[in-house]
Amino acid sequence: MARQVYAGMDAQEKGDDPLYKRRHSLAHVMAQAVQKLYPGTHLGFGPPVENGFYYDFQFQEPFDPESLPLLEAEMRRILAEDQPFERRLVPLEEAVEKFEAAGEALKAEYIRELAERGEEISLYQSGPFVDLCAGPHVEKGSQIPPDCFALDAVAGAYWRGDQKREMLTRLYGLAFSSKKELKEFLKQREEAKKYDHRKLGKELELFMISDQVGAGLPLWLPNGTVLRDELEAMAREWEQREGYQRVATPHLTSEQLFYTSGHLPYYKDGMFPPMALEEGQNFYLKPMNCPFHHLVFGHRPRSYRELPLRLAEYGQVYRYEPSGTLAGLLRVRGMCMNDAHIYCTPEQLEQEFRAVLELHRRYYDMFRISRYWMRLSLHDPENTAKYVQNPEAWRQSEEAIRRVMDSMDIEYEEAMGEAAFYGPKVDFQIRNVVGREETASTNQLDFAVPERFGLTYIGPDGEMHTPYCIHRAPLGTHERFLAFLMEHFKGAFPTWMAPVQVRVIPVHVENFGEYAESLAKALREDLFRAEADLGPDSLNKKIRQAATAKIPNVLVVGGKEQETASVTWRRFGIQDQRSIPFAELKAVLTRMRQQRIMDNFPDVELPQA
Amino acid sequence: MARQVYAGMDAQEKGDDPLYKRRHSLAHVMAQAVQKLYPGTHLGFGPPVENGFYYDFQFQEPFDPESLPLLEAEMRRILAEDQPFERRLVPLEEAVEKFEAAGEALKAEYIRELAERGEEISLYQSGPFVDLCAGPHVEKGSQIPPDCFALDAVAGAYWRGDQKREMLTRLYGLAFSSKKELKEFLKQREEAKKYDHRKLGKELELFMISDQVGAGLPLWLPNGTVLRDELEAMAREWEQREGYQRVATPHLTSEQLFYTSGHLPYYKDGMFPPMALEEGQNFYLKPMNCPFHHLVFGHRPRSYRELPLRLAEYGQVYRYEPSGTLAGLLRVRGMCMNDAHIYCTPEQLEQEFRAVLELHRRYYDMFRISRYWMRLSLHDPENTAKYVQNPEAWRQSEEAIRRVMDSMDIEYEEAMGEAAFYGPKVDFQIRNVVGREETASTNQLDFAVPERFGLTYIGPDGEMHTPYCIHRAPLGTHERFLAFLMEHFKGAFPTWMAPVQVRVIPVHVENFGEYAESLAKALREDLFRAEADLGPDSLNKKIRQAATAKIPNVLVVGGKEQETASVTWRRFGIQDQRSIPFAELKAVLTRMRQQRIMDNFPDVELPQA
Repeated sequence: MARQVYAGMDAQEKGDDPLYKRRHSLAHVMAQAVQKLYPGTHLGFGPPVENGFYYDFQFQEPFDPESLPLLEAEMRRILAEDQPFERRLVPLEEAVEKFEAAGEALKAEYIRELAERGEEISLYQSGPFVDLCAGPHVEKGSQIPPDCFALDAVAGAYWRGDQKREMLTRLYGLAFSSKKELKEFLKQREEAKKYDHRKLGKELELFMISDQVGAGLPLWLPNGTVLRDELEAMAREWEQREGYQRVATPHLTSEQLFYTSGHLPYYKDGMFPPMALEEGQNFYLKPMNCPFHHLVFGHRPRSYRELPLRLAEYGQVYRYEPSGTLAGLLRVRGMCMNDAHIYCTPEQLEQEFRAVLELHRRYYDMFRISRYWMRLSLHDPENTAKYVQNPEAWRQSEEAIRRVMDSMDIEYEEAMGEAAFYGPKVDFQIRNVVGREETASTNQLDFAVPERFGLTYIGPDGEMHTPYCIHRAPLGTHERFLAFLMEHFKGAFPTWMAPVQVRVIPVHVENFGEYAESLAKALREDLFRAEADLGPDSLNKKIRQAATAKIPNVLVVGGKEQETASVTWRRFGIQDQRSIPFAELKAVLTRMRQQRIMDNFPDVELPQA
Repeated sequence: MARQVYAGMDAQEKGDDPLYKRRHSLAHVMAQAVQKLYPGTHLGFGPPVENGFYYDFQFQEPFDPESLPLLEAEMRRILAEDQPFERRLVPLEEAVEKFEAAGEALKAEYIRELAERGEEISLYQSGPFVDLCAGPHVEKGSQIPPDCFALDAVAGAYWRGDQKREMLTRLYGLAFSSKKELKEFLKQREEAKKYDHRKLGKELELFMISDQVGAGLPLWLPNGTVLRDELEAMAREWEQREGYQRVATPHLTSEQLFYTSGHLPYYKDGMFPPMALEEGQNFYLKPMNCPFHHLVFGHRPRSYRELPLRLAEYGQVYRYEPSGTLAGLLRVRGMCMNDAHIYCTPEQLEQEFRAVLELHRRYYDMFRISRYWMRLSLHDPENTAKYVQNPEAWRQSEEAIRRVMDSMDIEYEEAMGEAAFYGPKVDFQIRNVVGREETASTNQLDFAVPERFGLTYIGPDGEMHTPYCIHRAPLGTHERFLAFLMEHFKGAFPTWMAPVQVRVIPVHVENFGEYAESLAKALREDLFRAEADLGPDSLNKKIRQAATAKIPNVLVVGGKEQETASVTWRRFGIQDQRSIPFAELKAVLTRMRQQRIMDNFPDVELPQA
């Protein structure tokens, strides 16, 4: 879904943002055009979003995407009329009656909700089109250049994101400050399609999907498995340094555990169906690792001296996503999660939460992910039905988390009323190479579930206390994070991650093949993933093939190199090549691997031997 | 099951082995005593085995283990009669009639089988007891000292190991050359019970079983997870050096894959029940990794230049073992297998099989597993129903495997007619610390299944060929192999595997606690698992606790150590301690870890700094 970039803005800020007003007004113009061309179409919401706007419609007949250009033309015609955008406040009853009379049941429903919350009912009119809307908008249609926007795409969307409600048709538009900006955006997006992870996954032989196994259950090919293993090795090392301990828990369990955790029956739709064992119990694949970690925490009495206890696992979980939503590695049914649970005292909460957020920042810095921000989901104290009633825990934890976030130099937005029922959470949102926003990781504080499991520790006072629990997964799942990295790196991985780290190419196989192979062998003995290309192709073709495979280091060797025990070192994506003694190169590669140098970015300085 | 140590012996060797004859004769004496004390009891088989003998009986009433001493007394009485053991050959009809008249249906069934195979029917008589038996035996009862044996245990056993046949009661006896040897054996076995992996698993907090998760699904606690991770890291490194490539495949699949592989419907009983997906397909947890690896091999055309292709995965599999058979880590329902499949040409088979067997030997040498041997299961060319009809492949592969085995200096036995239907196999049998024999790994050649999956490669002749496939798993599963190592090492792991590698103990916390913590921290920065014991207990108690936890390296530090930047280094299980500069110790530990020194064996020399 497009990012609700404007969600955190107040009216003043919106009024000061010309793009906000333009995008928002274009949503209205699109709705007006739709109702003109498709009479009887009813309305959902139509907000401005990042890069443009959308509107959700209830069409009488399925909307044909081929009709987008017609609709666009109608919008330009409406803009040419230079309609003013006018706001007025109306009493509740008048607003409800007006929309109900027009058959706009969803709007009427929302108006009643606004009124219950005591908010004023504001309408915007432009030409014949009237919408429930807080604004602000442009003053009139002529303030929008007719070439700064384009209709873009059609998708399905549930009314208010609720799968149990009406399915609407969402029409997306793009809108920028100028035609030039629009064209640049489209060009960049076209470029980015080349780096779609599904395309790279096939070209670089990273993973496969098989009908015989099933959708959403990728098989990782050797090259992709290297990526998983290297990423995991890094996470393990970093977590070890941070005092985490690892556990390994089963992928399935008797249903009893999920009744204890509360996943059953509430989360059942998101789980694979049960296996009915002969002994008479149902067994389920796990959709989450938490209950298992809670069992490990609780398997014997704990003292406050053991806290914080940090249990980590790259845990395999299975979620029964609807088959229609499965896509590449981004939406799968089996995923391996960079999971951990930190059990701590209330006093340790702030420090532990800080360490978790800092860990995110260090990962992002390392991978050069610069476009990210946080989203803090808080509880709504008025909504007593939705949230665990523990005002002291809510106050104390929300304050602690906000203190941590304020002290970090990372952009964040707050979302009141979006906390889970058992505690506040912090999502990390990242922007990928195609501009798509993703929730990269969720950090959840939990002060209710430990109680369900009867988890306690003996405090310095000799009494039993219930620990807080932080759920965290900075690298998300292998599937999503590696899909992100494939696109982020455009398929070119740093030496430490690359499936093939070094390829040695002799200028002439018969004369120098042996020397080439001896270098590859020496590197393999040091556990580098290195190979010599002794095939029949020409030197130039071999160099091109190595570039196509995005191999970070290519060593070309001939007579001169053999005599001086050196190589000609070519780096992926860099024109220059350099001559270097092989022993020195090996030392450099060893440092690159050990320090996890991001040498796939051309500005990164390589270590010295 | 007790090992059939005598299975490979010929009559001459048996005749030359006094223990064979003694144990075999004691089985007859036990049967005579049973038929005396429990008239109407019928007979199965009663062979000599390692450490003694057993006999399988059909009792009229369940046998009460409390009655073993009575039975033992009756055996001693019989021995005192000094009955001669006499052999005679009888015609088939006479033998069948005789045993049928006595109600010995199982014996009669077996006699007919022997006759069909053209073997002679030999009976042994001692006192009133007559048994179908090839012998040899002692000449008379007085040749068996009455104190060299003891009855030991009662168990259930199917007639000829077939779950569809009669369940018999097996009585076990122990028998040695002398009373002294018997007593030594019993003492050693009692000692070994202390090192049962279930006991160690609890004491050292290695793993847990939870009712909420289910039997046979262990959760690995932090200490046990270290063992898994270290073992796996070693296997990965060794496999990388041997040219294996890793893959990562899902734990569940659409049933279609297992119909292709042939696991369904034939292996269904060994699998977890299906998950019925809404889309209308059944999904299964995988009991084996092979079909997934076959898909990886087959996902694109392969050339002979890519062979041998070795696909490795520490793959999690699930098998629905009967709940009554589950025990600790030895018999579980979820297990992580050191799996790999090697796809090769017929010409490469011998070399690849040799490398696999050599890898076993290197693992065993490393872990100091000295009591192991191989078992080669061959096909029976007469049994055309059971085996894939491909005489050339059978001949070629069995010869190649036998050549490899003959050239290795490892004891092996052959078992005709025990091959799988798709190829010969080699099991490695190891003996554990309690003397129990285990199949530690199975290596299976497969020249039929690749064809089911349509796997081919383009040969140098430009034609399509079907590869051979070797299934191998030298380290078996984490569960079984680590259970073995726990017992084999008596819970004391080498430094490279140990959950806590170093514990630093200050002689006085207030004065030297900071120094102790600084050393532990310096080690942790080098990714050692190191901790300082700053608790309130006395120095001696702390040293005892470190020994109870079997921590391999304990560093005691006080004023002298602090002044000289050194430590007093105590090794687990060794009396001597030595003073060593800390920097030097760290260098030694680094080498121990890197070289995976088995320093839990006191005779192993430690590396120099």
